[in-house]
Amino acid sequence: MRPTCPARFASRFEAFSAIGSTGDGGVNRVEGTEANGAARRQLVAWLEEDGFTVRIDRVGNIFGLLDFADPDAPWIMAGSHIDSQPCGGRFDGAYGVIAAVEVAAALRKEFARTGARPTHNLAVVAWAGEEGARFKTLLGSRAFTGETPIETILADTDAQGVSLREALASIGFLGADPAPPIPVAYVELHIECGPRLEAQGGRLGLFERWWGVHKFDITFLGEPAHTGSTPMERRKDALYAAAQVIAGVRHLADAASSGDLYTSVGKLVVAPNSPNVVPSAATASFELRSPKLEIIDAAEQRLMEMVSVACATARAAYRIDRDVLRRPGRFDATLGALARRLAEPFGVEPLAVDTLPGHDAITLAAVCPVLMLTVPSRGGVCHHPDEWTAPEDLALGAAWLSATLRSLTLDGPPACAPAPPHPRAA
Amino acid sequence: MRPTCPARFASRFEAFSAIGSTGDGGVNRVEGTEANGAARRQLVAWLEEDGFTVRIDRVGNIFGLLDFADPDAPWIMAGSHIDSQPCGGRFDGAYGVIAAVEVAAALRKEFARTGARPTHNLAVVAWAGEEGARFKTLLGSRAFTGETPIETILADTDAQGVSLREALASIGFLGADPAPPIPVAYVELHIECGPRLEAQGGRLGLFERWWGVHKFDITFLGEPAHTGSTPMERRKDALYAAAQVIAGVRHLADAASSGDLYTSVGKLVVAPNSPNVVPSAATASFELRSPKLEIIDAAEQRLMEMVSVACATARAAYRIDRDVLRRPGRFDATLGALARRLAEPFGVEPLAVDTLPGHDAITLAAVCPVLMLTVPSRGGVCHHPDEWTAPEDLALGAAWLSATLRSLTLDGPPACAPAPPHPRAA
Repeated sequence: MRPTCPARFASRFEAFSAIGSTGDGGVNRVEGTEANGAARRQLVAWLEEDGFTVRIDRVGNIFGLLDFADPDAPWIMAGSHIDSQPCGGRFDGAYGVIAAVEVAAALRKEFARTGARPTHNLAVVAWAGEEGARFKTLLGSRAFTGETPIETILADTDAQGVSLREALASIGFLGADPAPPIPVAYVELHIECGPRLEAQGGRLGLFERWWGVHKFDITFLGEPAHTGSTPMERRKDALYAAAQVIAGVRHLADAASSGDLYTSVGKLVVAPNSPNVVPSAATASFELRSPKLEIIDAAEQRLMEMVSVACATARAAYRIDRDVLRRPGRFDATLGALARRLAEPFGVEPLAVDTLPGHDAITLAAVCPVLMLTVPSRGGVCHHPDEWTAPEDLALGAAWLSATLRSLTLDGPPACAPAPPHPRAA
Repeated sequence: MRPTCPARFASRFEAFSAIGSTGDGGVNRVEGTEANGAARRQLVAWLEEDGFTVRIDRVGNIFGLLDFADPDAPWIMAGSHIDSQPCGGRFDGAYGVIAAVEVAAALRKEFARTGARPTHNLAVVAWAGEEGARFKTLLGSRAFTGETPIETILADTDAQGVSLREALASIGFLGADPAPPIPVAYVELHIECGPRLEAQGGRLGLFERWWGVHKFDITFLGEPAHTGSTPMERRKDALYAAAQVIAGVRHLADAASSGDLYTSVGKLVVAPNSPNVVPSAATASFELRSPKLEIIDAAEQRLMEMVSVACATARAAYRIDRDVLRRPGRFDATLGALARRLAEPFGVEPLAVDTLPGHDAITLAAVCPVLMLTVPSRGGVCHHPDEWTAPEDLALGAAWLSATLRSLTLDGPPACAPAPPHPRAA
């Protein structure tokens, strides 16, 4: 059986990739920017053209509703995000949104043509601010699930002090519509953003586990002083303290030969950041990632030991500005089994893989059963203009999403044992 | 003999310190900012009030001219700078400018009263952009001496892409006046910005040597990738490379037990600087300082070895964006001997000290004999709101400057052996 991807998908995806294009294959559609606004307007235009009821909620999530069944019938939801990193790839997030729109629109026509009677309604969604490149991560899904109060989300500010509320208002996406109800199943199709599928020769993947991550923002505190005249032994050098820990935390991951600990510092802000002033502050964003909570916890302990030693060496102090733990966990096994069965007609066996980056789907997993479908990323590249998934894999993934959403809207999620409690609640 | 500091000095210095005050004893008068413009306007108002002929040259240097002798007679020049670091102290630079204005104005009255006939004219100066907090350092003096072409200086841009030309125009100080001639002697009074005078119980200091400094801006080049999904061994992490070298270069200084090597990284800019993206670029501003060129050269070699090792470890590349060497050197010994003799009436023996930070005086030393007078900095603190020099030391320093400028304008610089070639020319 050949994939039955809607014919428009490829051309729409190409058109969408031009919005905020960085000219090298990548896009810059950071949340709340003009390019992000343009992408949002294009999405809304397509949703309206295809007969969706569009809702923009208070944090700028865009929903497209298709009232397949009774308005009070339960909802199936599918989507992803359309914001990007500053030099991001064009597949990350956008693929899942455009595919969901195309698949849902095609199912609407199919059901009208065949007279099928779905038992569930279908909503597609583009979550606001998933990337965390400007504001915090996963803004839209955290607001939707109630994990974070809407007012807190809207008050989040970027480096220039602009709030999400202001940024959304400036692009015309500070909405007032109610969000649709919590769905009985959420499905997200996303590129793997990792090299594992490609390495195993897989064309479809089923995310079974998500890695946990412990994120720390630590500010090292020194004292400004002239680099030309202050004796070395008198300096209180915030950047020297930070540098030791940045190098040290990398060694933790390198030492974990099993490959089950990833560490990083992606962001470092130095003050006053003048070439001839000893840095008085350096704020580093640390991440410790693993599929196993005990590995994360052990790394955290080592990290804090390094912070103490580095501060002593550099005569600096420190302050923890942010400390967020997302525990590792598992997606819904019953939905996973359904998706695996629905892939059979394609003659391609989905491989079980872990997702290492965070996704809105993980936030949703706290409130409903969640299924994450994935396709290979060439070379595992993600968050980079070279991000790439072959067109035939994009089409195959969309066809798999189509089969899944057809089944879920017609018959609802399969009966299953009650889901285990979400790790975040544990 | 009691210091004969002009009575207005203390009140004017206090009034000046309020301009751009950060409320904690410090000032923020970064070059070309509104506060810097306000300080410049105040200075010009005082110069005009005191009968100076004011000239603003093409790079925003402010000169106040007193035509004591024949207009074609040689010039003595005294001054410093009034720009500051973003969280700078109020003494650094401003002290030398306000004191020079007060001393020159008082000498003018004194000469009129006593009928003395100076043989030399006197110019006071506030050099533009000494600090390098926004644009490069020593902008005004480098333009005056011809070390750097005026067009190059004006085209220098800040982090937001604003040029010095635009910044000066925005505050009304993009001048068109000719600068006065190169003086036959330049005198700068400046706080020590170091702990050595205080440590030795000295109240006056004579800078004899300046330390050399080798400044490098090195950009480490990695590749953006998702921190959540990219296997550690595939990462090309620019910040990890930079962190190793930042820590390592500090160790060079710590290992130089003789205290004759200072190293620092005051500025580090990371891109894209997003918490969950492996940094693709990290630009670090390194400084290697010593009174001995061979120590600087050896440290440079070690630095570059560390850069190679760090890049190999982090799978990064690097690029040297800037590489500027200021060789160590000595101020004019004949002027130094004169100043030493002129301090005798105060009953205070000036101590010979090194200046470790750069000064406009060092730039001037390439084109004329230069004298640098200094007073103690409490705790050696500089570039910080806690920067402090006792009022009686400020007054004593100003009195010493007064005696020096009186002697130099009346009698000219003492005859001396030809100055040795400037190290920069060597």
